[in-house]
Amino acid sequence: MFRIKKIDHVAICVADIDAALAPYRDYLGLTPNAREASEELQTAAVLLPIGDSNIELISPLAGNAGLEKFLAKHGPGIHHISIEVEGLEAALAFLKGLGVPLIDETPRVGARGHRVAFIHPKAFGGVLVELVEA
Amino acid sequence: MFRIKKIDHVAICVADIDAALAPYRDYLGLTPNAREASEELQTAAVLLPIGDSNIELISPLAGNAGLEKFLAKHGPGIHHISIEVEGLEAALAFLKGLGVPLIDETPRVGARGHRVAFIHPKAFGGVLVELVEA
Repeated sequence: MFRIKKIDHVAICVADIDAALAPYRDYLGLTPNAREASEELQTAAVLLPIGDSNIELISPLAGNAGLEKFLAKHGPGIHHISIEVEGLEAALAFLKGLGVPLIDETPRVGARGHRVAFIHPKAFGGVLVELVEA
Repeated sequence: MFRIKKIDHVAICVADIDAALAPYRDYLGLTPNAREASEELQTAAVLLPIGDSNIELISPLAGNAGLEKFLAKHGPGIHHISIEVEGLEAALAFLKGLGVPLIDETPRVGARGHRVAFIHPKAFGGVLVELVEA
């Protein structure tokens, strides 16, 4: 059994997190958390809490071909929606049973030490959805 | 004075709302609200509540060149982040005072009869941000 809880964050891929932070801070008054790096996901990330969710700015660490390609193709922009789930393994097993294409059949470790798994964007008509459990 | 409250919704632009709904319903168990049309924004929209936020599927009504261009250029994808604000006019006046480029200097009427105003994406490094007040 699993339960969808909320939008954990909306991730925006940028080349330079410090430069990208400014409008969220200066125009919206959001306060960034400390920068984190996920070696496993090869990303640097800063979360900006908003309500009970977050805007996340991510940039590629060396070797992250996926995000480098995203930036080269699209420029900075909204990269994925992350959805908090209770029961991540059960959710992945449910989706696998339906034949939903998964990028991660088992969770990886993302920002804040949370376990994350990406669903292939073709499952959601081109939208990249991440499931996350604290 | 104004106050940023939360992410009201993440909007995903699609060509066919009914087809795009299926994975959110079948894979995530989200329940779509009734479809709405905003003549002023020239969009059809369905909200899928999740936590205290929503995923919104939008598609262009006839004459919506902006969304038609988005679909032609990118295909379906995440289009904008909508942020709920208390004091929308005050927020717009504050941003205008800072010289922030606004698409809407005065609110328009969006889905659910809410007042909305878009900030130009160049203010947020390419990300389209909407402010909304119920």
